[in-house]
Amino acid sequence: MEREIIELFTRHLGIQGDLSLGDDAGAIKLGDEWLVATNDMLVRKTDVPDIMTPKQVGFKIVTMNVSDVAAMGAKPLGFLFSLGVPRDIEMDYLEGIAEGIGKALEFYEVPVLSADTNEADDLIIDGIALGRTKRLLTRSGARPGDLVCVTGDIGRALAGLLVWKHGLNVPPSTKKALYEKLLEPRARVREGIELSRIANGAIDISDGLSKELHLLAGMSGVRIEIDARKLPIRGEVREVAEALGLDPIEIALASGEEFELVFTVPEGRADDLRMEFTVIGRVERGDGVYITTDGKRQEMPVLGWEHLGRGAKGTYREMFR
Amino acid sequence: MEREIIELFTRHLGIQGDLSLGDDAGAIKLGDEWLVATNDMLVRKTDVPDIMTPKQVGFKIVTMNVSDVAAMGAKPLGFLFSLGVPRDIEMDYLEGIAEGIGKALEFYEVPVLSADTNEADDLIIDGIALGRTKRLLTRSGARPGDLVCVTGDIGRALAGLLVWKHGLNVPPSTKKALYEKLLEPRARVREGIELSRIANGAIDISDGLSKELHLLAGMSGVRIEIDARKLPIRGEVREVAEALGLDPIEIALASGEEFELVFTVPEGRADDLRMEFTVIGRVERGDGVYITTDGKRQEMPVLGWEHLGRGAKGTYREMFR
Repeated sequence: MEREIIELFTRHLGIQGDLSLGDDAGAIKLGDEWLVATNDMLVRKTDVPDIMTPKQVGFKIVTMNVSDVAAMGAKPLGFLFSLGVPRDIEMDYLEGIAEGIGKALEFYEVPVLSADTNEADDLIIDGIALGRTKRLLTRSGARPGDLVCVTGDIGRALAGLLVWKHGLNVPPSTKKALYEKLLEPRARVREGIELSRIANGAIDISDGLSKELHLLAGMSGVRIEIDARKLPIRGEVREVAEALGLDPIEIALASGEEFELVFTVPEGRADDLRMEFTVIGRVERGDGVYITTDGKRQEMPVLGWEHLGRGAKGTYREMFR
Repeated sequence: MEREIIELFTRHLGIQGDLSLGDDAGAIKLGDEWLVATNDMLVRKTDVPDIMTPKQVGFKIVTMNVSDVAAMGAKPLGFLFSLGVPRDIEMDYLEGIAEGIGKALEFYEVPVLSADTNEADDLIIDGIALGRTKRLLTRSGARPGDLVCVTGDIGRALAGLLVWKHGLNVPPSTKKALYEKLLEPRARVREGIELSRIANGAIDISDGLSKELHLLAGMSGVRIEIDARKLPIRGEVREVAEALGLDPIEIALASGEEFELVFTVPEGRADDLRMEFTVIGRVERGDGVYITTDGKRQEMPVLGWEHLGRGAKGTYREMFR
């Protein structure tokens, strides 16, 4: 239904910003800079897993939005939020949300510009982030000859979710490493700003690396080749994969809400980036996304957690319930 | 409960923009300009009267936000929105909303920058507007010696609501004039931009002229004196007042969601304003808001529609139901 709604609105929204809808954020030219703006609504009933504390929920609504700003290569400028609050809300829960939002704004050094509160049937938080940059990174910016890179490591969010869903017994240190990423992911703000100097295409990992790579290739009109051996997958993810008889690469490709940045950068310029990242592949002429595993090259499937079986169905977010 | 929630969040939100929360919109300095941002959430169940068509609802969510930008003296730059959509929504209704948002963006010449859709229990639309201005108008900007002015006319929105609520039989031309303002109010964008050159304080009429004047006086630390004879009240409002045995001045002071701009301007500069407006009073040293009616001066009560009796209770918005 989401697609149907998007199509319906797209038909009626004639005037768009200086960048068409469909990127991590919208953007308009403001003098010699770009103003970047994004919004993301969180509905408690469908988007918030019981495992998360309200403070983590509050922090995450800021992270989700700030990450989209970072993926555009922009420095966050300000945050806004609207609350829909049920009459019977527990005030402790709401206080946790407020505390989480406050902590996140401190962490990202972003001021709150405006807030609105209303009565609603379910707790709803709509977060909005603004940012600015001299040079914009987009999903359509990848160029043949670029290296494909990713910040941090991938797979821990989904591996943590699998541990929780299956009540898997793992060592405390493993659980900590996984839950940290699942419950308290952080947006790559410093990296996004650094990337705006040099990178071409960029996207943040909201729905899983495989989906983001397909978006990047499709919107840039290029082919992406990934080398599976280079994917930065931590030992804790491999532990969980082994325990559940799953492929750690599939977990890494399917894991969503990681908020790492996937970006492409001209080969000769990658060394100029003053940040940590991993080269995982190359951009070529053509189309599609391919992955080479153990010398075997194949089209990369668009993976979501639902492909990891065990009876789970629906969206990544629904798995949280 | 709204006040309690606002206090709770205010405790946790340390860093604010270059303007404290509490104005029509938030603002941050961006070079030699101000970037203005505001958000306003609309919940179908509590905020949307049955009398409104979905197209009118869509238009209004843009108007509400653009009006806050105009009240800051800013030119609207962009609009964003988040939708919460129930699974069983009638697609015709949603299409009407989309059409209304689209028409409003054309009307105000504002591009849509970003949109988000989610599943929710009730239809929820969170609108966000951005704007820019060289000079900011605020609720705290009124200065002793200023004239107090208002754009357009006041009272028609509430008079229209009263006609609808009471099933009052009025001539078609009266009904049209009132319903137009009730159902299709327009934000004063051109006037806001013009005012940013000269005016000192400004606020838009969301909750009724009397409430806005009290906010303006309180936040500016001044006294406001209003001359009741000067209030721009149209004949249609007087017709309804007479039919219901009400005071037309009270209707004018209580009428909300009019989206007219109330502003103050140095006496010698008012003639330089290239726009239509009415001078309704003066700013003096001191505090409070006073109104002189038939030579009798008294403190202006903070009026809402609920003071107009007839068994109605709750907020202005609740009266809509």
